Amino acid sequence: MGVSTIQLFSEALGKWTTYSVILPEAGEGPFPVLFQLHGLSDDHQAWIQRSNLVRHVAKLPLVVVLPDGGTSGYLNWKPSNRLHKHRYEDLIINDITSHLKRNFNVTGGKWAIGGLSMGGYGAMRLGLKYPDRFASIWAHSSAFHIGDYADPALIEPDSVATGNVFHLAEDVARLPEPPVISFDCGTEDELIEHNRALHAHMESLGLDHTYNEHPGAHTWDFWDDHVREALEQHRRVLNLTPLP
Amino acid sequence: MGVSTIQLFSEALGKWTTYSVILPEAGEGPFPVLFQLHGLSDDHQAWIQRSNLVRHVAKLPLVVVLPDGGTSGYLNWKPSNRLHKHRYEDLIINDITSHLKRNFNVTGGKWAIGGLSMGGYGAMRLGLKYPDRFASIWAHSSAFHIGDYADPALIEPDSVATGNVFHLAEDVARLPEPPVISFDCGTEDELIEHNRALHAHMESLGLDHTYNEHPGAHTWDFWDDHVREALEQHRRVLNLTPLP
Amino acid sequence: MGVSTIQLFSEALGKWTTYSVILPEAGEGPFPVLFQLHGLSDDHQAWIQRSNLVRHVAKLPLVVVLPDGGTSGYLNWKPSNRLHKHRYEDLIINDITSHLKRNFNVTGGKWAIGGLSMGGYGAMRLGLKYPDRFASIWAHSSAFHIGDYADPALIEPDSVATGNVFHLAEDVARLPEPPVISFDCGTEDELIEHNRALHAHMESLGLDHTYNEHPGAHTWDFWDDHVREALEQHRRVLNLTPLP
Amino acid sequence: MGVSTIQLFSEALGKWTTYSVILPEAGEGPFPVLFQLHGLSDDHQAWIQRSNLVRHVAKLPLVVVLPDGGTSGYLNWKPSNRLHKHRYEDLIINDITSHLKRNFNVTGGKWAIGGLSMGGYGAMRLGLKYPDRFASIWAHSSAFHIGDYADPALIEPDSVATGNVFHLAEDVARLPEPPVISFDCGTEDELIEHNRALHAHMESLGLDHTYNEHPGAHTWDFWDDHVREALEQHRRVLNLTPLP
Repeated sequence: MGVSTIQLFSEALGKWTTYSVILPEAGEGPFPVLFQLHGLSDDHQAWIQRSNLVRHVAKLPLVVVLPDGGTSGYLNWKPSNRLHKHRYEDLIINDITSHLKRNFNVTGGKWAIGGLSMGGYGAMRLGLKYPDRFASIWAHSSAFHIGDYADPALIEPDSVATGNVFHLAEDVARLPEPPVISFDCGTEDELIEHNRALHAHMESLGLDHTYNEHPGAHTWDFWDDHVREALEQHRRVLNLTPLP
Repeated sequence: MGVSTIQLFSEALGKWTTYSVILPEAGEGPFPVLFQLHGLSDDHQAWIQRSNLVRHVAKLPLVVVLPDGGTSGYLNWKPSNRLHKHRYEDLIINDITSHLKRNFNVTGGKWAIGGLSMGGYGAMRLGLKYPDRFASIWAHSSAFHIGDYADPALIEPDSVATGNVFHLAEDVARLPEPPVISFDCGTEDELIEHNRALHAHMESLGLDHTYNEHPGAHTWDFWDDHVREALEQHRRVLNLTPLP
Repeated sequence: MGVSTIQLFSEALGKWTTYSVILPEAGEGPFPVLFQLHGLSDDHQAWIQRSNLVRHVAKLPLVVVLPDGGTSGYLNWKPSNRLHKHRYEDLIINDITSHLKRNFNVTGGKWAIGGLSMGGYGAMRLGLKYPDRFASIWAHSSAFHIGDYADPALIEPDSVATGNVFHLAEDVARLPEPPVISFDCGTEDELIEHNRALHAHMESLGLDHTYNEHPGAHTWDFWDDHVREALEQHRRVLNLTPLP
Repeated sequence: MGVSTIQLFSEALGKWTTYSVILPEAGEGPFPVLFQLHGLSDDHQAWIQRSNLVRHVAKLPLVVVLPDGGTSGYLNWKPSNRLHKHRYEDLIINDITSHLKRNFNVTGGKWAIGGLSMGGYGAMRLGLKYPDRFASIWAHSSAFHIGDYADPALIEPDSVATGNVFHLAEDVARLPEPPVISFDCGTEDELIEHNRALHAHMESLGLDHTYNEHPGAHTWDFWDDHVREALEQHRRVLNLTPLP
């Protein structure tokens, strides 16, 4: 699998931005997409530089897309002024998705989404908000409280209303075919209570999901290790046959 | 149009290599491909860094692909030893073409090819050798003699036999539907005699082509200027409607 | 001159960002720096992709640094929340400058700054605000009014106070050794009145500067052409001997 | 530590090439350099994409340089013809070294060198050939026989004479201050006999070195793990104080 760097003009940000993509070196497309989201203060290269993701996906007929979410929580922020646009949910859901469909050999059906920390929140939120788009979600060591911290006065109304993954879970629990939902957290991770809370909430809703705790903290060693379980789920849900 | 950097494993080179690609920001695919080849000692970024190609193609529903040909003349060299592979014709015709068809939203029909100097030779040679692949050729300031200088003992037999664009022109002249062929050269360019010779040869063969001489030398100012005529031909031959 | 892509962690943005740099292929350092700033909605690659800057600087013993300013006006914005930091003036003046001094072979003395449109404003503003840092300023087709449009409630107090290049010019006019200041604008550019106003203001202050109007509009053809005059000024002011 | 991509014109290759570099985000230079060489068929990004090297070096005041050696064994090959140059030893020892000294804030003293497989051979060979340049060598899973396989008729005379690390070890054994030399290999690696042979040879010469065998094969898991021991040696030999 090669790693490519893609430049696109994002209407959602009002400027050019860059995403990375890991493309299959074999197999026949169209391929489904996995959006893999980075954590706070990282960039679109973090998963490539700081984990062995490239090796872990080597046999999967999958296009892995790594957007750059800055420090946004993958939310649609209100513009700071008429120029300064920060609609990061739209970056992924509209702009990068359109760019992929225009330029790459990707499937029209459901895709997968994952991430760590801020990106775990982003993956869970976008996965639950768009269950028609995503069949498989896996969130690591997630900061599920980001939506609470974001000042509603600064967030676009549509993102405020859907910033809370606990509320989104209630909607998804009523769906006939919800996405396959998993999340995990290290037992030494400060964020573990929010993960336990979401787990309890989904239990109470009767929403099918997998929640795992493992020894470990908020570190790349944890993510490099457990992303392999996430990929195994995505492979299974998307029904991918490993490449030769 | 954004500029992307694509990494692929090339069987023809026995190693990973990189190509650049300019992808449309609008329009609906599939899009045809233009291979645009650099000159001796340049790399896949030369056309981007040293000309305004990115701006010139801004309105074309076209995927512009910029391979890295090193100093190879885009020929298939024999391996220096069992490890050291240098099949640059195969890099373009097999490996990058397969990678594009696997991963990008490109047409299955005929594409276009162009280049400058060593890349002009490469464009003319590959365009004439594969008339089923290329509908439009434009070679700037070409070193059409490269095939003569390449020691046949070092070149793969298939590339030796087809290294000479004069001979290839004879084959193409017999085709019912040859590609649209154009080339140009600066009047102060040391390579002009080879361009005049190919022009005379094609005239004698009755092979339709356009040959232009312009004031200028072997410089990027010449190529930045005249590549626009090449793009206009590719647009016309590939029947592209400019993007809004 | 090769084009390199540099990743750094910016305290000012609270995240990783990328800048481009054009490094000399000959000569002996340390080399002075030219910051060359892009316009609204462009990124750090705009000058490389859309002009012939790489060729124009080929003979200069100069490190050309191309930051990514997004849509910020190169101002220090207040954080949207405790995570979302947008101090773009600090990105250049603190973070990239420190990164250059830590990692590259650059001079400790005065450098140069230039840019177009939003980046022309940024170059003029930062050049006038930090006359101890910059000996040479050249702003093309500048949006000198950006500071007026930026809601003071959203801008850090230090940037509000210094957002107005007209006021900064008054301070600089009192300096014994102000930077060498130039700016230009196309006669068909909608921004021309602001350029004329700054010219008149500097005239009234008795502040030495060069202001040129040329036929042309707010286009890359204008900037690709007139950046050469800017480079000639930077060369002269920084006392650079062209490379062989 | 950020990862940067550097483009330079290489006289040794007669063309532009690219190397990666991991630059410190803290500390005060000048910094020593570690050349870290990839294996056969990989490129300059392999260590970044396929291991956690970026994280492993995070606290080291060190410039890690990752050249692109293709399939060359880091030897100086004879040119295929007058255009096609492949002097990969010179790429590292002359061109990249000069580029680093011209453009980066690197020390003038001794540096370190490491690599895997073909790059282990390259690191050991260049480290032993240039003991005035390198104070610390660590070669993983090395193909020490590459020099034997390279047809002398195709290699430049100076590289033929010094292609054999066993012979170079004899010269180094006579030096008053040889580099600190280490190498390791997996017990399931097919290359282990060559590693054992070099170990025995160095023993017989009385040349100080460390040789370790570990469970494992010719895999990135092995290199991602044991490169940490290599980095610890380089840190110690180069006398680096970990960054805060």
